[in-house]
Amino acid sequence: MSTPAESDDRTDEGAELPTVYDLAPEHTTEAVEAGERYHATVNGVVEYGVFVDIADDVSGLVHESNLDGEYAVGDDLLVRLDEIRPNGDLGFDEATIDDYETVTVEYEPEITATDDLEAAVGEDVTLDGEIVGIEQTGGPTVFTLRDASSVVDCAAFEAAGVRAYPEISVGDLVRIEGTPERREGAIQVEVSDLAALDDAADLRERLDNALDERAAARDVTPLIEWDALDKLWDDLEAVAARLRRAVLENRPIRIRHHADGDGMCASIPVQLALSRFIEDVHGDASAPRHLVKRLPSKAPFYEMEDVTRDLNFALGDRDRHGQRLPLVAMLDNGSTEEDVPAYEALAQYDIPIVAVDHHHPDPDAVDGLLDEHVNPYLRGEDYGVTTGMLCVELARMIHPEITDELSHVPAVAGLTDRSEADAMADYLALAQEEGYDESDLQAIGDALDYAAHWLRYSSGDALMTDVLGVDAADEDRHRDLADHLSERADRDTDRQLDAAMPHVETESLDNGAQLNRIDVERYARRFTYPAPGKTTGAIHDRKVAETDSPVITVGYGPDFAVLRSDGVRLDIPQMVEELEEEVTGGGVSGGGHLVVGSIKFVKGMREDVLAALEAKMGDAEIDEELGSASVAGFED
Amino acid sequence: MSTPAESDDRTDEGAELPTVYDLAPEHTTEAVEAGERYHATVNGVVEYGVFVDIADDVSGLVHESNLDGEYAVGDDLLVRLDEIRPNGDLGFDEATIDDYETVTVEYEPEITATDDLEAAVGEDVTLDGEIVGIEQTGGPTVFTLRDASSVVDCAAFEAAGVRAYPEISVGDLVRIEGTPERREGAIQVEVSDLAALDDAADLRERLDNALDERAAARDVTPLIEWDALDKLWDDLEAVAARLRRAVLENRPIRIRHHADGDGMCASIPVQLALSRFIEDVHGDASAPRHLVKRLPSKAPFYEMEDVTRDLNFALGDRDRHGQRLPLVAMLDNGSTEEDVPAYEALAQYDIPIVAVDHHHPDPDAVDGLLDEHVNPYLRGEDYGVTTGMLCVELARMIHPEITDELSHVPAVAGLTDRSEADAMADYLALAQEEGYDESDLQAIGDALDYAAHWLRYSSGDALMTDVLGVDAADEDRHRDLADHLSERADRDTDRQLDAAMPHVETESLDNGAQLNRIDVERYARRFTYPAPGKTTGAIHDRKVAETDSPVITVGYGPDFAVLRSDGVRLDIPQMVEELEEEVTGGGVSGGGHLVVGSIKFVKGMREDVLAALEAKMGDAEIDEELGSASVAGFED
Amino acid sequence: MSTPAESDDRTDEGAELPTVYDLAPEHTTEAVEAGERYHATVNGVVEYGVFVDIADDVSGLVHESNLDGEYAVGDDLLVRLDEIRPNGDLGFDEATIDDYETVTVEYEPEITATDDLEAAVGEDVTLDGEIVGIEQTGGPTVFTLRDASSVVDCAAFEAAGVRAYPEISVGDLVRIEGTPERREGAIQVEVSDLAALDDAADLRERLDNALDERAAARDVTPLIEWDALDKLWDDLEAVAARLRRAVLENRPIRIRHHADGDGMCASIPVQLALSRFIEDVHGDASAPRHLVKRLPSKAPFYEMEDVTRDLNFALGDRDRHGQRLPLVAMLDNGSTEEDVPAYEALAQYDIPIVAVDHHHPDPDAVDGLLDEHVNPYLRGEDYGVTTGMLCVELARMIHPEITDELSHVPAVAGLTDRSEADAMADYLALAQEEGYDESDLQAIGDALDYAAHWLRYSSGDALMTDVLGVDAADEDRHRDLADHLSERADRDTDRQLDAAMPHVETESLDNGAQLNRIDVERYARRFTYPAPGKTTGAIHDRKVAETDSPVITVGYGPDFAVLRSDGVRLDIPQMVEELEEEVTGGGVSGGGHLVVGSIKFVKGMREDVLAALEAKMGDAEIDEELGSASVAGFED
Repeated sequence: MSTPAESDDRTDEGAELPTVYDLAPEHTTEAVEAGERYHATVNGVVEYGVFVDIADDVSGLVHESNLDGEYAVGDDLLVRLDEIRPNGDLGFDEATIDDYETVTVEYEPEITATDDLEAAVGEDVTLDGEIVGIEQTGGPTVFTLRDASSVVDCAAFEAAGVRAYPEISVGDLVRIEGTPERREGAIQVEVSDLAALDDAADLRERLDNALDERAAARDVTPLIEWDALDKLWDDLEAVAARLRRAVLENRPIRIRHHADGDGMCASIPVQLALSRFIEDVHGDASAPRHLVKRLPSKAPFYEMEDVTRDLNFALGDRDRHGQRLPLVAMLDNGSTEEDVPAYEALAQYDIPIVAVDHHHPDPDAVDGLLDEHVNPYLRGEDYGVTTGMLCVELARMIHPEITDELSHVPAVAGLTDRSEADAMADYLALAQEEGYDESDLQAIGDALDYAAHWLRYSSGDALMTDVLGVDAADEDRHRDLADHLSERADRDTDRQLDAAMPHVETESLDNGAQLNRIDVERYARRFTYPAPGKTTGAIHDRKVAETDSPVITVGYGPDFAVLRSDGVRLDIPQMVEELEEEVTGGGVSGGGHLVVGSIKFVKGMREDVLAALEAKMGDAEIDEELGSASVAGFED
Repeated sequence: MSTPAESDDRTDEGAELPTVYDLAPEHTTEAVEAGERYHATVNGVVEYGVFVDIADDVSGLVHESNLDGEYAVGDDLLVRLDEIRPNGDLGFDEATIDDYETVTVEYEPEITATDDLEAAVGEDVTLDGEIVGIEQTGGPTVFTLRDASSVVDCAAFEAAGVRAYPEISVGDLVRIEGTPERREGAIQVEVSDLAALDDAADLRERLDNALDERAAARDVTPLIEWDALDKLWDDLEAVAARLRRAVLENRPIRIRHHADGDGMCASIPVQLALSRFIEDVHGDASAPRHLVKRLPSKAPFYEMEDVTRDLNFALGDRDRHGQRLPLVAMLDNGSTEEDVPAYEALAQYDIPIVAVDHHHPDPDAVDGLLDEHVNPYLRGEDYGVTTGMLCVELARMIHPEITDELSHVPAVAGLTDRSEADAMADYLALAQEEGYDESDLQAIGDALDYAAHWLRYSSGDALMTDVLGVDAADEDRHRDLADHLSERADRDTDRQLDAAMPHVETESLDNGAQLNRIDVERYARRFTYPAPGKTTGAIHDRKVAETDSPVITVGYGPDFAVLRSDGVRLDIPQMVEELEEEVTGGGVSGGGHLVVGSIKFVKGMREDVLAALEAKMGDAEIDEELGSASVAGFED
Repeated sequence: MSTPAESDDRTDEGAELPTVYDLAPEHTTEAVEAGERYHATVNGVVEYGVFVDIADDVSGLVHESNLDGEYAVGDDLLVRLDEIRPNGDLGFDEATIDDYETVTVEYEPEITATDDLEAAVGEDVTLDGEIVGIEQTGGPTVFTLRDASSVVDCAAFEAAGVRAYPEISVGDLVRIEGTPERREGAIQVEVSDLAALDDAADLRERLDNALDERAAARDVTPLIEWDALDKLWDDLEAVAARLRRAVLENRPIRIRHHADGDGMCASIPVQLALSRFIEDVHGDASAPRHLVKRLPSKAPFYEMEDVTRDLNFALGDRDRHGQRLPLVAMLDNGSTEEDVPAYEALAQYDIPIVAVDHHHPDPDAVDGLLDEHVNPYLRGEDYGVTTGMLCVELARMIHPEITDELSHVPAVAGLTDRSEADAMADYLALAQEEGYDESDLQAIGDALDYAAHWLRYSSGDALMTDVLGVDAADEDRHRDLADHLSERADRDTDRQLDAAMPHVETESLDNGAQLNRIDVERYARRFTYPAPGKTTGAIHDRKVAETDSPVITVGYGPDFAVLRSDGVRLDIPQMVEELEEEVTGGGVSGGGHLVVGSIKFVKGMREDVLAALEAKMGDAEIDEELGSASVAGFED
């Protein structure tokens, strides 16, 4: 609040004329000072003088002995505040001066910061900030206000279900008067007045600066010492800041992730960290449900069908619930050229996108469309740095308090994606401290994968946290459930291989490698676990275990083939490019890593494509160092 | 309100006896007139006379000087109103007469029309009308009342979430007393009393007449001068009236439409016009969401699966929300024999159906089941009059204010369905005035089709209005989005044709036509855009461009074939009929137009069916005038 | 309430000392008795004596004439109640005794039973019981309280949408003070106080006993006299008790059932009976919607995909709405080894499961996982005792008042599953009494099957009750609808057979049986009604009608075969077991009955599997008595 005294400093400087203050009507006696002069209006005439107002609630007597003129009710005059009596009464003299300067004293109420509301419960407060959300409930309209310190829900009641202050939109800077109340442990402000602020460049700047500061990634130490993490640390912090900022801006977040074990290890911790942060910021246990959604993608990229649906939902939520358009976070997905059409669709609506992935990236294709892109290949690392490992750190940067729940997750992620990173030993040791040995962790990974298979497009939030053993999952239930599901996965895999193995055709390539071929459409059960890609991987693993030679396995169906190699440098992306060129009318597409990948083609050209592919395999260089980590991302 | 004076006119005519009025207790002083006689009851005895009631709130003094008898409280007597004093007091004389006729004056409150409520906000009003909707909210029960002028929501509060007036059902004629209040700009009546009207044949008749009048199609001038529109105008007006009537009756409307470009150009304008009209009628921005739904159908007819689902939803909404069963509007769909099973299912529940379609109709099959059926073929016109063109006029008849938003839509509809109507020039000129040249319009059509493909069964409301550029879509976003999606459609089509074209087998038929055959299941990518039907169309277009001969293209899969012809009179419906007959165990079905159509058969008889089909094609008459407009409706 | 007098009985027994009661402050004058002594405290001193309190609201005068000492306000003394005056005033004497025994009289309010609340509307009551549900509405928090007699909803309002009494959880024993009010005909208690009871072992025991008693199956007489029902009666009663108990415990029930005619005849009556019972218990018409769900399963067993989804939903409902985890009821499904993986998944969460099925059971596999298992084979009966017949009795045991609506349902169930049970005559006669002749019932069964086909995974609640003719379905509509749908089913079946019959290959087996083979994937229309399994059945029926020989029909697709036999003892489960063994890499699985069943295999081994199968068929024993009842359960 600027008092007259303060105003003096600025307005009276160098002036010779006496100052007469003209107080805005909202001022209280806190704004006045004995000895100062004020514009006043007569509000009553009594025998012994006149009563004057210098503000709506600031009045006092000018005793007849101090009065020069005669005044009727409504007359204006100048007064000088003689004294403030102990009982609060004000005594004025008439101020008879001709030359003076009027200083208008605008009323500037004391603004309470949203994180000081706890101490002001039940009192009248004034808040300044930006409206970052408006939700019409069956009762009041709830405005979410963000100021420099925090976010608070402010309930304005016009009538049940009726929009209060319809002139206010998301993004407006406003002043709210109201009373903070406790609601289920959180603070909610009951609004008595709400109005847009007209000239608020200062506030905008303060809010922006505060947002930058609050959004910054939290300062955490990596769970283990590892060069790879160091190299990627700044990248992850940038993603953490984007996500935290989205929360502070009340912007919904959609996590699109690969629906396999590593994708779950990446996305569930981030979802949890965001949920906790949202709950902290909004003080509302139900807010995470509206503001963060985890959506598994069956394909290893963002399909047009998915993005069209996501976009339409986002536009609908905007139109119906006044939500902002979301930020999209791609996890264990999102680094490849195949994501471009989806990204371009989001770009039409300026929807920001961040990606954390460890699949072989195509930065030329995607970087222009991504706001942040984290991928170990971009920092000289590889697939062994799994997305789950990275996202556990990301989750900690978002909400460090989550650390204890997650220390076994990177090891699960590494095992499920068969990481051969040196850091695995440290991650396994870390998990050991929580009572998980390697077989426990493998079981969790298998269980995640198995449950993800059956959940299909559902995120399975409540089930998956129990499988992964996070978010206060009951320890015994978590262990039993992971064991049960991993056993089912093993049993189903065994049944699948019982059918398939007798049909694997094995031959020797010119380069001495063993080539295994199987028609997974004809010789594996359909619509069951494991799907063709994973079935091919399991066959490959058995074949590798049986021989010392380099081994390639091709599992093909009517219009696709899944490839795995141990010991032969296939360079699958290169092969796909050549086949696209060489096989006319083949409709070839696909990709992957050097030694793990998949190819699609039109049904009628399968024999041509496979023949050309095998010729290339026979010419490929033997490199016994090269192991196929996993076919993750290329199942069915 | 009928005053005694008015009643006189009717009841006293020719009578010799003096009249004594017996007022219903609800009457006010407005109902009385000095000089008239009334039945009265003593309510107080004072020194100077007696006070009498002639209605609950109409009392006055009979001064002792004017009193003949002696009365105690509760006694009845006859009085004459001597004067109404300036202060409103009434002065009576006793009326000592023996022979008189009593005229009972029923109380008939002043009924306010629902469209006069704005001027009566905050006052007590009485409304008469029909209950057309009852919705139990978490707070009050909301009764939707329709009178001769409009519809208004009336909120009756018993207790939070508790059904008020459970004896009242939809369809009841009622009298409501209450107070109109403003709610988000709309009027809602707070109910103080609500009761069924017993003897209300008059009201029913007035409501029916008013409904007829209000439901009538609005009077609009066609966007362009065109004979075809003139011929179909009355038909469209009849559909408009059906739809408007449904809105006024609070009956939900389900729009089932073909999920392609023309289907979108037809259904989105009608959905918007209905939404605006609903909002006007109900004064509630959320009402359209509950009362009109747009549902794309992948097949070019109403499938049993869809109708079973629709019916079950409708029954559920009836049971849960008290909604009426809906009216179904078939747009760019619905004219063919294939729709009959679905229509028959709806007929079990007396659900009305209207259809506006330009696919070759089978009126014998469907007209008995449709309440209205608009199709250019039924008026001597053809496929070139697209459903989008018709439905833009239909939308205008429903809500003329929508006109400005839609003037480019008929041109989009025509281009996307390749209309060769002469009117296209006028439609293109109209769109040009809005700044769209032909390539812009083509891009919008392609974008609609592309987005519809990926949305599958979702209506994509929020996205599609941006693509089509209606409903206050941001102009730049609309343009960019249409460009982006149409580019993706082109790119995907090119990729599809790169794979497919080398596999097209071309031969010469006996009649000199070029026959192109392709197995689109084996030689086109699956589960992508364009689907087999549209892929066949694109191949056909390329082949037509390459040659001067008549051209037929057949795109076949395991159990279907899609046909296109330019320059050969195939008469596909006739061929299908013959094949059904000739190929035993072929399971042949299908249909379409002369030169565009599709055939289904059982997988194992494909070779037989295709051979028989080609024989027929070779015998077909050459007619260079015949062009295949589009395969719209036969994509899978 | 225990009065001092009663307390005397226990505490004073054999004591010589006079008793002085120390009343808990909540006591009223009902707790006092003239002549008894009390501990008192002075609350006022007047000229003529002192006023004393013996409880918060129990005060009176000790006249100075009866007062021995001198007392100031706050002093304690002993008093004797001299008299209770007609106006309610109490007159005390000071009780001057030295030796006495103090008996503390705890306040024990009068507890009202929840089924006595109707008589106490508007009064203050106290309830004791267990919290069995907590739902946060937009307004109050609704606690569902179960006591020994019933269940009642108790609304506690903290603030709109704010959880009241957050310290209370489901399962807590509590005392509620409040006021019963009528809400839509049901009673709801407005809570003024709610607190957990600490030491409540007694209450727990009473509640448990009451629950046992109330949960017990209602005593009904079988609809017809039939040995088979007698044998299964106790089993059904045990299931009824489980289901009733779930309702009383506020535990949701998920009915998973076979999506065919018999499955509908089984599950709809049970759903209805439960809904009515829930409505009775909760007095809330919307409660059934939350507490009982019917979910059709396309496969004849509980698939992993379904159970994963169900489990995830259940966990989500628990987390979001505080619901208990459900009880799962398997109807016309659930007896076989194929259900084990799903059951094991539910077991991880201790979710109880009951099954009523008539498919050939594998008790060794499932009984350890089921809480109740009813199956005619387990009591020496067979498939002819259909699940629908059993479940009509089960529904009656749950809610006997439903009987009249269901008397035609067992006959429908029997016809749709082709039961050859002797009891069919009685069931048909019973239906005849309701005006259904056999063709009507067959039509209903066909209509159920047809509608279930198109509804796919939707339960179709509102539609299916109309088809089955229960739950106050309009009689004419029910009849017309069943006729219409059964006619469509017939017509579609005829069309399917027109395509398929010419492709049936017939040969003679060594044992003289006629073998019919058809590739239903190649020679039947796909994605339509009837699906391959039912198509095979229809073909078989036609073949049986044409010949006197034993007949086997095999309808096969790429990776499955459906089998039917009349007159040959196939023993399909045995054959499947042998084929699994004999055909290496065949991926064979499947099962069924002796003469009805299905087999799955990997596509590439079809010829091997079918050849081996036919060899076995040729060796199988002829047994003209054996008829194939139906292929129910093997449609895809």
